[in-house]
Amino acid sequence: MKNCLVAQSGGPTAAINATLAGVIKGGFLSPDIGTVYGAVCGIEGVLNDNLINLNTKFCDEENLKLLIQTPASYLGSCRKKLPAPDVDETPYKTIFSVFQKHDIGYFFYIGGNDSMDTVDRLNDYAVANNIDIKIMGVPKTIDNDLPETDHTPGFGSAAKYIAASVREMAQDANVYDLKSVLIIELMGRNAGWLTAASVLARTSDNPAPHFIYLPENPFDLEEFLSDVLKKCDEIGNVVVCVSEGIKFADGTYVCESTSSGLTDVFNHKNLSGTAKFLENAVRERLGIKARAVEMNVSQRCASHLASKTDLDESVAVGQLAVSYALAGASGEMMTFKRLSHSPYEVTVESKDIKKIANLEKTIPSDWITRNDVLSPFITYIKPLIQGEPNVIYKDGLPVHITR
Amino acid sequence: MKNCLVAQSGGPTAAINATLAGVIKGGFLSPDIGTVYGAVCGIEGVLNDNLINLNTKFCDEENLKLLIQTPASYLGSCRKKLPAPDVDETPYKTIFSVFQKHDIGYFFYIGGNDSMDTVDRLNDYAVANNIDIKIMGVPKTIDNDLPETDHTPGFGSAAKYIAASVREMAQDANVYDLKSVLIIELMGRNAGWLTAASVLARTSDNPAPHFIYLPENPFDLEEFLSDVLKKCDEIGNVVVCVSEGIKFADGTYVCESTSSGLTDVFNHKNLSGTAKFLENAVRERLGIKARAVEMNVSQRCASHLASKTDLDESVAVGQLAVSYALAGASGEMMTFKRLSHSPYEVTVESKDIKKIANLEKTIPSDWITRNDVLSPFITYIKPLIQGEPNVIYKDGLPVHITR
Repeated sequence: MKNCLVAQSGGPTAAINATLAGVIKGGFLSPDIGTVYGAVCGIEGVLNDNLINLNTKFCDEENLKLLIQTPASYLGSCRKKLPAPDVDETPYKTIFSVFQKHDIGYFFYIGGNDSMDTVDRLNDYAVANNIDIKIMGVPKTIDNDLPETDHTPGFGSAAKYIAASVREMAQDANVYDLKSVLIIELMGRNAGWLTAASVLARTSDNPAPHFIYLPENPFDLEEFLSDVLKKCDEIGNVVVCVSEGIKFADGTYVCESTSSGLTDVFNHKNLSGTAKFLENAVRERLGIKARAVEMNVSQRCASHLASKTDLDESVAVGQLAVSYALAGASGEMMTFKRLSHSPYEVTVESKDIKKIANLEKTIPSDWITRNDVLSPFITYIKPLIQGEPNVIYKDGLPVHITR
Repeated sequence: MKNCLVAQSGGPTAAINATLAGVIKGGFLSPDIGTVYGAVCGIEGVLNDNLINLNTKFCDEENLKLLIQTPASYLGSCRKKLPAPDVDETPYKTIFSVFQKHDIGYFFYIGGNDSMDTVDRLNDYAVANNIDIKIMGVPKTIDNDLPETDHTPGFGSAAKYIAASVREMAQDANVYDLKSVLIIELMGRNAGWLTAASVLARTSDNPAPHFIYLPENPFDLEEFLSDVLKKCDEIGNVVVCVSEGIKFADGTYVCESTSSGLTDVFNHKNLSGTAKFLENAVRERLGIKARAVEMNVSQRCASHLASKTDLDESVAVGQLAVSYALAGASGEMMTFKRLSHSPYEVTVESKDIKKIANLEKTIPSDWITRNDVLSPFITYIKPLIQGEPNVIYKDGLPVHITR
């Protein structure tokens, strides 16, 4: 009987701990798994031999419930990228010695595109060196940009929070009898899934957001100003949603007009200020009152308004990852395959990690226009935000659990 | 039998429609009131004779329920301030002729400090001209800055949303094993009530926010940097909440500082917010990773996470305003008087509008320090965020009602 190890990586979501809860459940339920360990701060925790025993705390069903409603990464996260083993084998030697020390037979890495690269490299190394360990990727990302899966755990909750918040802000924007433009900036560097989710805010009474600009299509400032001016003349208060990552036709980010030019360790540009730039443009060029709102980190951690569908699926995919690994799968990532939109039905599968790691899935071009999304997108996303979990409150606030 | 008229003014809140629902209920329940009218966009709606009959829509109990959970001003709002009648009597003549035309015997104005000025002026005019109408102010403001009342409707819901969101962001900020500073900017120009509410986010496991800077005390950049640096060295990830309105000792707003130095393509200084300014200061002066979050309009419209206590009180205060007016009160504002903190108990009273209009109540100086709040503030605010209303969802999102 081997032990299992789970770790979390990349940006937090409102559902990544639900997936952790799923892995823990899966580990507990299997007679073939001894202890369930967690690595603190992703693969860094393995490199530092910083593992914690999860059996004690989570044999208490109440703690598992709290874990599911706790946002961000319970185990902590990292953004470490492993070097190729032929460039530097040291981290691999360390990692596999830690695996061996704790008799780890199954390693589950919950993360997004970059984290799947780690799964891929570790699995290749294990195969090449004949090491008996199953290494599985479990997806999470609010960005919904992983290929080979219908959607990613975490996306539905972020989408629900965004749609509800945009609907509220649209009500707020509508109270004064004067022309105004509210520009809401949502996360998404290259894929517009999250921003597109704002379409769900629309009602028959209030069709805001009136325009949605996504990074999948080049952004044209003149067209944007013309869109906004026309709509303002027509209805007064206009609400616009934009992705942080919209780019001009020449490929430069709109936010680069104001941004600091900082990059993260993966050389991603530190994007901020897209909405602020557009606010200034509307005020300066059109002379219309404008307000920029950057929804910021709440998009990925607002677990108080999570999607029950998303949380249930996040738990399930974690639990099934354990079953798949026990059945011999390795170097794969758990995926969803949609069987039906209405009634909504999905099955869980797993796919070769090489088809996923480091790749990004954007919105199909026939689901979107230059400044809006089309009905196939709505059909796709609607089921993912359904249902409200019974959040446990204490003293008026949701309760979280910390390690 | 006279009719009654209600209007909403000033910035939206998550509870101002609950107060509207209360006035409507009060009007419906009284055999002495005929039709309940609403003025569209505050006193502007009266000036333009733009009134709507509220009886038809809201005799349906379901619509009243939806009204209570709808954020922002159902009737629309304005920021109009009436001139003194000896300077310009025209608007008064118009307003009172509209009152007469619709046989209005009772006028309820739901709003904040500025709106109470309108109540005061209209009541003075009615008294001076012997016009038989009762004019009552009903408070609403997320800012909680009205004198003579223990707290204001709308504050508890905003406080609950802020505390829950800050708690989530604090979890999010904690996932990476590196030094970082998260700076959350909250509303409040001169009074720090809302920002101070962030203290409720703290738990025994995670005492974030670690510092709270309020406009009641002068802000010192060097002290701030020293606070943050010390705490970062001690614990790594630091969370700070600041009011948008914090000022340096010389009285200038921190957000007026120009040190970000960035300009956009229009060559406009990128007018950084308070948090953005501090983010840059932390990064440049301390070399520590920092992120600014401006919570923005969601603070005043996030009805999906309203306080049940606040909504219940907001309805009650609207309903009681009708009873008070029927009993002869005029030129007064409804107020809360706290009888007990625990168990929480308040009574509703009404106070002379002259003691309230245009005045601001800040946090008592012995409830706060230079960079934190003290236990009397926590005792005061805790009851106001208690309870979760049963929000009606459809297709995964809260349902609103529009006029």
